[in-house]
Amino acid sequence: MDVSNGFEFFEETTNAEVESFFDSSPPLKDGDEIRRRVEDFVGKRCSPAVNERNNKVVCVTSGGTTVPLEQRCVRYIDNFSSGYRGAASTEYFLKAGYSVIFLYRRGTYQPYCRDLPDDPLLECFDVLDGSTVTVHPAHTEKVRTAISEHRAAIRGALLKLPFTTIFEYLQLLRLVALSMRCLGSRALFYLAAAVSDFYVPWESMAEHKIQSGLGPLDMRLNQAPKMLSVLRKDWAPAAFCISFKLETDTMILLKKAGSALKKYKMHMVVANELLTRKDEVIVVTESGNFVVQRDKTRPGADVESPLIELIVDRHSSYIDSV
Amino acid sequence: MDVSNGFEFFEETTNAEVESFFDSSPPLKDGDEIRRRVEDFVGKRCSPAVNERNNKVVCVTSGGTTVPLEQRCVRYIDNFSSGYRGAASTEYFLKAGYSVIFLYRRGTYQPYCRDLPDDPLLECFDVLDGSTVTVHPAHTEKVRTAISEHRAAIRGALLKLPFTTIFEYLQLLRLVALSMRCLGSRALFYLAAAVSDFYVPWESMAEHKIQSGLGPLDMRLNQAPKMLSVLRKDWAPAAFCISFKLETDTMILLKKAGSALKKYKMHMVVANELLTRKDEVIVVTESGNFVVQRDKTRPGADVESPLIELIVDRHSSYIDSV
Repeated sequence: MDVSNGFEFFEETTNAEVESFFDSSPPLKDGDEIRRRVEDFVGKRCSPAVNERNNKVVCVTSGGTTVPLEQRCVRYIDNFSSGYRGAASTEYFLKAGYSVIFLYRRGTYQPYCRDLPDDPLLECFDVLDGSTVTVHPAHTEKVRTAISEHRAAIRGALLKLPFTTIFEYLQLLRLVALSMRCLGSRALFYLAAAVSDFYVPWESMAEHKIQSGLGPLDMRLNQAPKMLSVLRKDWAPAAFCISFKLETDTMILLKKAGSALKKYKMHMVVANELLTRKDEVIVVTESGNFVVQRDKTRPGADVESPLIELIVDRHSSYIDSV
Repeated sequence: MDVSNGFEFFEETTNAEVESFFDSSPPLKDGDEIRRRVEDFVGKRCSPAVNERNNKVVCVTSGGTTVPLEQRCVRYIDNFSSGYRGAASTEYFLKAGYSVIFLYRRGTYQPYCRDLPDDPLLECFDVLDGSTVTVHPAHTEKVRTAISEHRAAIRGALLKLPFTTIFEYLQLLRLVALSMRCLGSRALFYLAAAVSDFYVPWESMAEHKIQSGLGPLDMRLNQAPKMLSVLRKDWAPAAFCISFKLETDTMILLKKAGSALKKYKMHMVVANELLTRKDEVIVVTESGNFVVQRDKTRPGADVESPLIELIVDRHSSYIDSV
């Protein structure tokens, strides 16, 4: 059997599967409050009175989702992602004048804080004379930036929404996408989160911790519904959409990126190879592939800076074209 | 079939299984450097010249281990544990005069920092006049404590060793236990980490990311070797050993805790029920069970404080008795 045909055949997600996924998901905690905040944030930018070009909103998703294996969750499958790319990209989108909804996995990198050490409290600060808290001179600038820019962004153009499980992530994404629909082509989706491909449906999940001691554990995981096509078709059809592919095998990577572009009607797919993703990504589009590399001659330069530059440019052309 | 007989039969771990687990594990990064640091830390407390009673060392394990599903790890199974108990217990052990080897999962709670907000940098600090970093008055005391006590402990009686996977955890535990052997009964193991019951042997693991798109995923996980009996029998036979059981089902909990006490020859098993574990634990010993509760009349009081008090007392009697 041809592999790409296999993908085509099996990855098709039906409306019934989508409905059934959401119907059986545990409801979002504080869902009403989150909806109010999102609608408030997006609403200000929707009004036809505002300058169209200056009111672009991007939803950046970041970090990995988890798949609980038990309802009272002790064990779960996690998708590795530090969230560095999402945090860095958020900074560049803000700098480019976008408002950002940052949908991030709890505990992952945050905008403006990605250059701090792992344990900033212990490594950046000191206590003088047993009472005055001070910042180490070596870290003063970074700490100052982290606090003041982060604060300013949250007061103005940044809305942060945390998730952990795939159930939370997909419910939040739907909520945000439906709200952003009113923005038309000024809406951008930058879907960098590592979303689980497989999951255990909530109702078929063990209520209690799976017991060990009875030999090997056999598990069957279902394919997670592919929400990208639903996002494009139903939730926010006029938005500019960018998805990501991460693979460890370069051969598989470009094939899957190209296939995702077509199947989900993405405007761009950013292809990452696990080991080189911090130096280089390949942007796959209908009009061809672009290699985006970080500027290795500039210390501290990252690949997100030129990547967001390219995206902002393409998104502008898209807005003008529709 | 009787369930507890089932447990007895299947949970027995042979020497061959232990050997094969370590032989096939990916080697510990910086293993020699870590061994040197541990031997240095323990060595100072081993010498017969030092006052026996005042040189007790506890190895506190904290947080959950992960089980990689792929060698170039994108997905893994995680065992949920915030590490709050391990971090809190470490503080109480230090206060009681113990030296502590804190074997913790990266990213989990750290001693002296557990009362800080999730994002201390953003919530505790501010920048005045665009340049001076200051601490919010409401958080000054906590931040000061976190920094100065943490620092003092690391300079003196606290050695911190991080892990992520079950392969790292078990190699570190063996290394620490073999080093602590020279302490005889003054060694205490407080094994609060949530260790995976199931794992995928490294050599049978997929090298690349498991592909989706081909229908449901069937996985077979092997039982992880039970290292508690090896720790007691071979690594540090004279040490006082405490293990933990976490279950979501109260009926199963006490049965399994009692069974672990006998099978692994633990001196104590601390039984936790997922939903009530912050208020109450049951300490299962050969001479009976003790319910340990936090003092609900004192705001901020935790269950770890009376638990460590009980353990320190029992450990002292144990040292005197051997």
